[in-house]
Amino acid sequence: MKNMDEAVVILSGGQDSTTCLLWAKKKYKKVFAVSFDYNQRHIKELECAKEICDELGVEHRILDMELLNQLAPNSLTRTDIEVDEDAPEDGTPPNSFVDGRNMVFILFAAIFAKQKGISDIITGVSQSDFSGYPDCRDVFIKSMNVTLNLAMDYEFNIITPLMWIDKEATWALADSLGGFELVREKTLTCYNGIKGDGCGNCPACKLRKRGLEAYLEKKTSVHN
Amino acid sequence: MKNMDEAVVILSGGQDSTTCLLWAKKKYKKVFAVSFDYNQRHIKELECAKEICDELGVEHRILDMELLNQLAPNSLTRTDIEVDEDAPEDGTPPNSFVDGRNMVFILFAAIFAKQKGISDIITGVSQSDFSGYPDCRDVFIKSMNVTLNLAMDYEFNIITPLMWIDKEATWALADSLGGFELVREKTLTCYNGIKGDGCGNCPACKLRKRGLEAYLEKKTSVHN
Repeated sequence: MKNMDEAVVILSGGQDSTTCLLWAKKKYKKVFAVSFDYNQRHIKELECAKEICDELGVEHRILDMELLNQLAPNSLTRTDIEVDEDAPEDGTPPNSFVDGRNMVFILFAAIFAKQKGISDIITGVSQSDFSGYPDCRDVFIKSMNVTLNLAMDYEFNIITPLMWIDKEATWALADSLGGFELVREKTLTCYNGIKGDGCGNCPACKLRKRGLEAYLEKKTSVHN
Repeated sequence: MKNMDEAVVILSGGQDSTTCLLWAKKKYKKVFAVSFDYNQRHIKELECAKEICDELGVEHRILDMELLNQLAPNSLTRTDIEVDEDAPEDGTPPNSFVDGRNMVFILFAAIFAKQKGISDIITGVSQSDFSGYPDCRDVFIKSMNVTLNLAMDYEFNIITPLMWIDKEATWALADSLGGFELVREKTLTCYNGIKGDGCGNCPACKLRKRGLEAYLEKKTSVHN
């Protein structure tokens, strides 16, 4: 019998994964959050994840992923490389890209989940705000799900609540789950490591702000 | 253009992966061997891998996979659990099983390969001597290949020279590649950490010995 009561959420401490955690908290009796320490430029991201789990009463596990740095040094993990203020215009991934990073995270989350007899793995990847990461696409997630099930002879179910919704709808979802303030104040999306509304200038902040403003505008107009 | 001149071989230091390394040495201009350090019961396995690479003039990279231990403690990585002398009769994996281990190895080998602009990844997994590891099956490898290509938007090609051949044929292959003595003397397959012909009693030794005897018998009868 598939375990319908428990789930593992991959939690970065950003807006998307935190919204997924709120979503999972409503749907399951028990939720485990898994974060990955790969020496991120902003260790604050992990601190946010921890704080959010404390506040929501979620069991939190941080896994060491230092190896990723040995293999793919880049701007999110090495402080000596500057982050592009804007994504490249040619559609290639921004220089924060670690090849296969999501695949690594999902695989280790799955190994962790199976150890606990859990099938459902929730990740906040989204194809809507696609920024050039091939392992955020729905086709990858579905292929990954099949591969995982074959690899471990187990019925994993990778669930992606945000796959087809944009940042505006993600804010709406967090609000409907009673977590608007939590997401706005406690999460870290900014490439420059500033919690909440962030620096306002990096690509992540711009995307987040655009969605927030669109959501707040619609909400206000509905209420008036 | 796909890089046809270089390949990455996943090398444990055992019979199968060493035979694959010999195979790759013939086929490619340059071969990189990748091994994984997950605190194996027998660190000697990695020493064998290193020695074999030195002898064959192959560039060798050992990647730290300590995290596997955090997630799946078991008899191959923890010295306080005894190895079963024989595989369980009910077809379940022996207690040396780390869930998803091959998937982890192939994924990190792929990340390493892409960093070097290499497409071809060679692994010695085999469905013929199937001992209950789901991630040694051909169907897993093919699914993994698709998932990897989607994850990194890249044309990986996972090659499994031993998938459909048994231990006897693996000895024949090593011999045809001029590596019979090297494989017999320098590789480590034995669960009890004894190089070459091993302890003779663990499941790995029994399987290896059966194949060797069958091969030697056939070879002798052909030559006489």
